[in-house]
Amino acid sequence: MIKLLGKPVADSILAKVLKRTQNFTQKWNRPPQLAVVIVGEDPASILYTRKKEQKAKELGMDHRTIALPATASPAFVYSVIQELNQDRDVDGILIQRPLPRSFFEGEVLFWISPEKDVDAFHPLNAGKLFLGFPIFLPCTPSGVMTLLEYYQISPRGKIACVIGRSSIVGKPMVALLTQADATVIHCNSKTPQLSKLTQQADILIVAAGKMEFINKDYVQKGATVIDVGIHRDSKGKIVGDVLFEDVATKASAITPVPGGIGVMTIALLMQNTITAAELRKKI
Amino acid sequence: MIKLLGKPVADSILAKVLKRTQNFTQKWNRPPQLAVVIVGEDPASILYTRKKEQKAKELGMDHRTIALPATASPAFVYSVIQELNQDRDVDGILIQRPLPRSFFEGEVLFWISPEKDVDAFHPLNAGKLFLGFPIFLPCTPSGVMTLLEYYQISPRGKIACVIGRSSIVGKPMVALLTQADATVIHCNSKTPQLSKLTQQADILIVAAGKMEFINKDYVQKGATVIDVGIHRDSKGKIVGDVLFEDVATKASAITPVPGGIGVMTIALLMQNTITAAELRKKI
Repeated sequence: MIKLLGKPVADSILAKVLKRTQNFTQKWNRPPQLAVVIVGEDPASILYTRKKEQKAKELGMDHRTIALPATASPAFVYSVIQELNQDRDVDGILIQRPLPRSFFEGEVLFWISPEKDVDAFHPLNAGKLFLGFPIFLPCTPSGVMTLLEYYQISPRGKIACVIGRSSIVGKPMVALLTQADATVIHCNSKTPQLSKLTQQADILIVAAGKMEFINKDYVQKGATVIDVGIHRDSKGKIVGDVLFEDVATKASAITPVPGGIGVMTIALLMQNTITAAELRKKI
Repeated sequence: MIKLLGKPVADSILAKVLKRTQNFTQKWNRPPQLAVVIVGEDPASILYTRKKEQKAKELGMDHRTIALPATASPAFVYSVIQELNQDRDVDGILIQRPLPRSFFEGEVLFWISPEKDVDAFHPLNAGKLFLGFPIFLPCTPSGVMTLLEYYQISPRGKIACVIGRSSIVGKPMVALLTQADATVIHCNSKTPQLSKLTQQADILIVAAGKMEFINKDYVQKGATVIDVGIHRDSKGKIVGDVLFEDVATKASAITPVPGGIGVMTIALLMQNTITAAELRKKI
C-alpha cells in the first residue's frame, strides 16, 4: 500500500512556480501579486488567508490581504473587487469563503475578472473547464489530478468514482477525469446502493463532507483512494471522509488526512497566480 | 413497452412558445427574431436551417437566414455576428455547424453574445449550466430532460448512464442529470466493459454517434432507453445508435429514430428564442 503524500507533489509544483516567479519579476520589474479579500472574522478563514500570504511571500510574490468587517455591504465589497480588477499590478484575486449571509454566491461568482480569477470560480472559467479548454483549474480537483500524475496513476481507460457534487470539488473533478479519458461514476447523497457503485472504481475520490464514512466495504481491492474531506473528530484529531486505517488494508494507494490533498491546494493556487500574471502580460 | 414519441412533447412545448410569442409581439410591437448564420452549402445544414425557418414562421417569429459562401473568411463571419449582436431587433442568433475548416471552433464559441446564444454553446452559458443556474439549455439534452418529464420518468435517485462526451450532448446531459439528482455513469470510447456499466442503468442515454451499436445485451430489463443518434443505413433508412427492435424486447420505454429526440431539438430552440427575447426586454 502506497501512502500518497501531498508534500513531495506540492514541493515539485512550488519549485516550478518559484522559477517562473523569479523570471517574471526580472522581466517585468515587479513580482506577481495576489490579492485576497476576506470579509468577517471566521477563524478558519483567517488561518487559511495567513497560510496563503506566507506561501506567496516564500515564493517572492507580492501579497495583499484586504480584510473587511463582517458588516461590509455586498455593494462595498463589490467596489473593492472592481478596484482590484482594474489595478494593473494585481494579477490574481480571490474572495475567501464563507461570506456573510447577506452575500448571494450566484452574484459574487461574477465579480472577479475571469483573467484574475485564480480560484477558477467564475462561470466563464467553469465553462471553459467544462468544455475542455480551461485557463485556470479549480485548485482542489487540479491538485488531485496532479497528485495522480506524480504517482503515475493514470485515469485513462479506468473507472473513477466521485462522491460529492459541489461546484468547487465534485463537478470539476468529474470534468477533469472525463477529459483524462476515465469513465466516471458520479455519486451524490441520493445515490442508491452507494457501495455497489464505489466498489467498481479503480480510482475512488471522496468529497462528500461526511466524517470517516467510507470504510473498506466501499472499496475495490487494489483501488486508489483519494480523500478530499477534512474534519476535526471529537478528540480534536484531523480526519477525512475515509476511515484511513480500515481502507488502507484493501486499497493499493491512499491519501492521508492531513498530508494528502490539503497541502496541494495552496500550491495550485500559487501556480494559478503565476499563470495569471504571465497571461496578463501576453494580452 | 412504451414508445417515447417526441411529437406530443414537442407540440406541448410549441403551444406554450406560441402563446409567449403572441404576448411578446403584442406587448413590444414586434415579433421575437431568430437569426441563423450558415456558411457554405452543406446539404444537411441547408435542410436543418430551412426547418428552423419554417418552424419560426409557424410560430409568428421573425426569422433571418444569413447564408454566406464557403469562402467567407472567419473575420468576415465574425463581423456579421457582431452586427447581429448589436442589432436591437435580433433576439436569438445561432451559427449552423459544421463550419468550414478555416474556422477554429474554440474561437467561434465566443462570438455570439451570451444573451442571444440560443444554442447555449458560449462558454459562459456552459459554465452557468455546469454550476447549476443555466439561462439557456443546449437543445438536445434539454429535449431529453423535457421528454423524460413528459412521460413521468424521474431521474431522481436513479442510475443514469450517458454514452458519449460531446460538448453539445454528452457533457451537458451529465450536468442536467446530476442536477436532477441522478447518479450518473459517464461512458466514452475508452470505457472498458461498456455493457457491464450500461446494464446498471435505469435510464440509458446513447449519444455515441455509432450506428445501431447498442443491442439488448447492453440494457437492463425494464430500463428507459433514449437514442440521440441519427444515421442513414445502407438501405437509406434513418436509424439511431440503438438497435430498436432488439432493445424494445427488453426496455420498458424507448425513443424511436426518427420520431424521438430529433423532433424535440427544434422545439427547444424555439423555446430558447422566446426566452432570449423576454429576458432582453427585462434587462
